[in-house]
Amino acid sequence: MDKKLVSRADDYSRWYNDLVVKAGLAENSSVRGCMVIKPYGYAIWEKMKAQLDKMFKETGHQNAYFPLFVPKSLFEAEEKNAKGFAKECAIVTHYRLESDPENEGKLRVDPDAKLEEELIVRPTSEAVIWNTYKNWIQSYRDLPILINQWANVVRWEMRTRLFLRTAEFLWQEGHTAHETKEEAINETKMINDLYAEFAEKYMSMPVIKGTKTENETFAGAEKTLCIEALMQDGKALQAGTSHFLGQNFSKAFDVKYTNKEGELKYVWASSWGVSSRLMGALIMTHSDDNGLVLPPKLAPIQVVIVPIFKDKKELDEISSVVDSIKLKFEGSNVEIKFDNSDKLRPGAKFAKYELEGVPVRIVIGPNDLKNKSLEIFRRDELSKEIIPLDNVKAHVLELLDEIQINLYKKSLSFRNANTTKVDNFEDFKDVVLNKGGFVLAHWDGTKETEEKIKEITKATIRCIPFNKNEQGKCVYSGKPSSKMVLFAKGY
Amino acid sequence: MDKKLVSRADDYSRWYNDLVVKAGLAENSSVRGCMVIKPYGYAIWEKMKAQLDKMFKETGHQNAYFPLFVPKSLFEAEEKNAKGFAKECAIVTHYRLESDPENEGKLRVDPDAKLEEELIVRPTSEAVIWNTYKNWIQSYRDLPILINQWANVVRWEMRTRLFLRTAEFLWQEGHTAHETKEEAINETKMINDLYAEFAEKYMSMPVIKGTKTENETFAGAEKTLCIEALMQDGKALQAGTSHFLGQNFSKAFDVKYTNKEGELKYVWASSWGVSSRLMGALIMTHSDDNGLVLPPKLAPIQVVIVPIFKDKKELDEISSVVDSIKLKFEGSNVEIKFDNSDKLRPGAKFAKYELEGVPVRIVIGPNDLKNKSLEIFRRDELSKEIIPLDNVKAHVLELLDEIQINLYKKSLSFRNANTTKVDNFEDFKDVVLNKGGFVLAHWDGTKETEEKIKEITKATIRCIPFNKNEQGKCVYSGKPSSKMVLFAKGY
Repeated sequence: MDKKLVSRADDYSRWYNDLVVKAGLAENSSVRGCMVIKPYGYAIWEKMKAQLDKMFKETGHQNAYFPLFVPKSLFEAEEKNAKGFAKECAIVTHYRLESDPENEGKLRVDPDAKLEEELIVRPTSEAVIWNTYKNWIQSYRDLPILINQWANVVRWEMRTRLFLRTAEFLWQEGHTAHETKEEAINETKMINDLYAEFAEKYMSMPVIKGTKTENETFAGAEKTLCIEALMQDGKALQAGTSHFLGQNFSKAFDVKYTNKEGELKYVWASSWGVSSRLMGALIMTHSDDNGLVLPPKLAPIQVVIVPIFKDKKELDEISSVVDSIKLKFEGSNVEIKFDNSDKLRPGAKFAKYELEGVPVRIVIGPNDLKNKSLEIFRRDELSKEIIPLDNVKAHVLELLDEIQINLYKKSLSFRNANTTKVDNFEDFKDVVLNKGGFVLAHWDGTKETEEKIKEITKATIRCIPFNKNEQGKCVYSGKPSSKMVLFAKGY
Repeated sequence: MDKKLVSRADDYSRWYNDLVVKAGLAENSSVRGCMVIKPYGYAIWEKMKAQLDKMFKETGHQNAYFPLFVPKSLFEAEEKNAKGFAKECAIVTHYRLESDPENEGKLRVDPDAKLEEELIVRPTSEAVIWNTYKNWIQSYRDLPILINQWANVVRWEMRTRLFLRTAEFLWQEGHTAHETKEEAINETKMINDLYAEFAEKYMSMPVIKGTKTENETFAGAEKTLCIEALMQDGKALQAGTSHFLGQNFSKAFDVKYTNKEGELKYVWASSWGVSSRLMGALIMTHSDDNGLVLPPKLAPIQVVIVPIFKDKKELDEISSVVDSIKLKFEGSNVEIKFDNSDKLRPGAKFAKYELEGVPVRIVIGPNDLKNKSLEIFRRDELSKEIIPLDNVKAHVLELLDEIQINLYKKSLSFRNANTTKVDNFEDFKDVVLNKGGFVLAHWDGTKETEEKIKEITKATIRCIPFNKNEQGKCVYSGKPSSKMVLFAKGY
C-alpha cells in the first residue's frame, strides 16, 4: 500500500480518509455505514475514554449499563425525542433464523419468530433510562442521580464518514436526575465546562462554548449547550453537547419525587455526550500532509527510538544505550517504543512514525555512540536537534509538554485567523464562500432568518457563544439583535 | 425495601436474585431478557475488566472494535457457527419508523424502509472479524494478529437470569490469526491458563481446566477449552472458554497468507471469551445469607469506616482520626469510604455494608478515641477484633491479603468436599440427585452415553480435565475408558 497521502490543499476530504486508513486508525466494514476501529485508533480512543472517565468520576458520576434495545412503546413516549430519531433507527423485528428450504446451507428469517413489539436499537438512551429511573426515585433522598454509560449507539445515517458520521458509533452518555431546575441547569453547564477542558487540555483543541439555537436543540431538550471546534478546512465540528431536559422525560415517564415538604414533584433532568467523533476532530485539528499529529497526552506511544546500524555489534551497543534510556523513564508515564526490527530501513521507519503521529522520535547512530548524543525530532514542527544523552529525560519531558501546548497554540492562532466578524450580508456571503471558518455576526433570533441564511450560504448557526452580548443589527434582516452568534459550514 | 435476604438453604435461586437486586448490582429491565447493570455492580465489572485487559495486553493483545451488526450473508458463511446461533438471534429488518396514521402520536415501522439484506445483532463476532482479517492478511509478516474486543452481544435466550443468562450481555472476545496450527493451539491453551489465573488470583474462585466434549464444543470450533467452577448449590458454572478454530473460518472467508517459502496457506485461528456472567460466578461462589462477599481485589471499596457518636463534637474528633487514617493509606490502592451520614443508624449501616460485601469494616466510637483503638470487622468470617490505631495500616493491608486467600481456600475446600469419584451408575445417580457437586467418573467417549446420562440425571460433562489419565470402565456403559471426566448439573 502506498503510504503517501494526497495533500490537504489538493483534496482535504480524501486526505482525511486516506490518513484514517493508512495510519491504521479505522476502515469501512462490509456492514453499511459501520466502521472497524483498528488497534492504533482504538488505543487513542482508550486514552480519551480513560481521561474523560476520570473527570466524570471526579465530578461525582458513576458508570452503569442499560439495554441496547428500546421497545417501541418506550421509544415513542417522549414525542419530540422520538420524532427526532424515528427516521434513522435500526429496528429489530424477529428473533430467529431458520434453514432456507430454497437455498441449501443458507438461512432466512423465521416468519414465526416475529416480535410482538418491535425493538429499536438505541440511538440514545433517554427513554430506556428514564423508564428505569422511575423505579429508582421516590424521595428527594434518592436524588441526585448522576450516571454515565459507555456504549455503542446506532443512527441510520445515509452518508457516512469514518469517525465523523457512522451508523454505529461509540460514545458516553450521561443521564442525571435532580430535585430542582437550577441543579439540572448547573449540571448541564458543568459538563459543558468539563468537555471544554478535556478538548483544550488533552486534545489541544480550542473550542467555543455556547448554546444551540432552538432549531439545533436536541430533540426532547429545553436547551442544548455545546463546544464547537474549527477544523483546518474551515468547517466547524460540534465536539460535545450537554442538554438541559427540563421535565420532558420525567413527565413522559411519570417520574416524581416527594420533596422535603412532602409534596410530589416532577424530577429535573440533563443528558450529555461525546462520541468517537472526537477522533475525527482530533485528527483534523492537528494532522498535516505527512500524516497524523497527536498531542502527547493522547498518543499511545510518546517516543519512538530508531537505531541506525550496519551490523549486529552496532545494534547491540545502541540497544544497551536504549536500555539505559528506558530505565530513566521508568514510572514516568512516557511510553517508549524501540523499533529495532530489520524489516524496514530507517527512512521508511521515519515515514511510518510520522504517518502515525508519534510526538517524539529519537535516532541513535554510530556517531551518537561516539559523542554520547542523540538526535531528537518533534513531529509537530518536523524539526530536529542533537542533544547530549545525559540530558535525555529532562529534555523529552519538557519537549512533550511543549508539544502539547504548541499544538493548542497553533490551533488557536489558526482559529483566530479564521474567525471573521462581519456586519453586512455581502461580506457574510463572501467570507463563507471564499475564506471559510467561523463567522461572527448579529442575528435577529428568528428561525426564518436562520433557515434563509442556511439556504443561501450553507452556513448554520454553530452556537450562541456565552458572553458575546453587544447591541447590533441582524446581518440578514437588519432587525435589532442583542448578541453576536457563530456561523460556519459544519461537519 | 426489605433488605433481608431469604436464606440459601430455603431457596437458593431466590436468594441469588434477591441479593443481586438488593445489593444494587443489577435488575431486570422492561426489555425482555435484558438487564440494567447498576452502578455498584458495574463498578465490580470495571475492576474485572481492568485486570483482564491488563493481562491481555501483557500477553501481546491489542483492543479493537468491530461492527455490532453482521449481514446475513456473512453470518451464514461458516455453516456450523451459523447453525449454532441461528435459533437465538435478534434480526434488524428495517431502518426507519414513521407516524402511525391510525394512532395519533405513535410510530410504526415504515414498510418502505426494509433492508435489502437483514442484519444480525452479533451473538459473537467471528464472521464479521474474519471477513475483515481477509483484507489484513497477505503474508506471514502480517501474522500473528492478536486482537481483543470489549463489546455487547445478543443471544435470544428464552429463560433468563440476572448476569447468568441474559439476552444482551457484556463480554470480551479475543480473535487471533496464526501461521501454524501449533501456534493457534498454544494461544488457546495460554488463554485457558490466563482465565484460570484470573479466576483464582482475583476472583478467589478455584476452577478446573479441561476440554469440552464434542457435543459441547463451540459451534465452528475444532476444540473448546474451558474453566469450570462449582457454585454453593452444587451446580457447575462455565466461567470462560477458548476455542481452537482450526481453519474453519479462514476457509469460510478465504483468508490465506503467503508463507516464507512463498506458498499460499490458510490461516489458523482461535477465539476466546469471558462475559458479565463472571459476575454471577463471583456472587455465587462467596456470598452468604447476610449478602455479598467480595474478594478485596475486585471490591470497589475495600474498607468502610463507620463512626459511633452522639454529638457533633464526637463526630469531629472521629473525623480527624479518620483523616489521619486515610492519609496513611494514600497511594496504597485501598479504597476507603467514611460513612459519616446521619441518614442511617450504625446498625443499619453495618447491615448495608455487609449486604454490599465490603471486605473490611472499621468502627470508631468514643471509647476508641480514649483508648486510641478501633474495631475491625472482616466480612468473610463475620468476626471482629479491637486493634491499636497505630497499627491500622499494616493490619488492614495484611487482613485484605488474608481475606483474598481465605476466600479462595474456603471455596476450594467446598469444592473438594463436593467432588465425588464414583465407579458405578447407581452411585452416580445417587450423588447427582442427593449430594450434587462435581462427579468424577469414567466415560466411554461416545455421544450416546453422554446424552443418555444427561437424559437420566440432568448432569452434563462439564469438561474432560487435563491430567486425569487413568484406565477404567465407563460408569454407564461399562466400556473401557482412558480418563475420568467431570460431570455436574450446570448453570
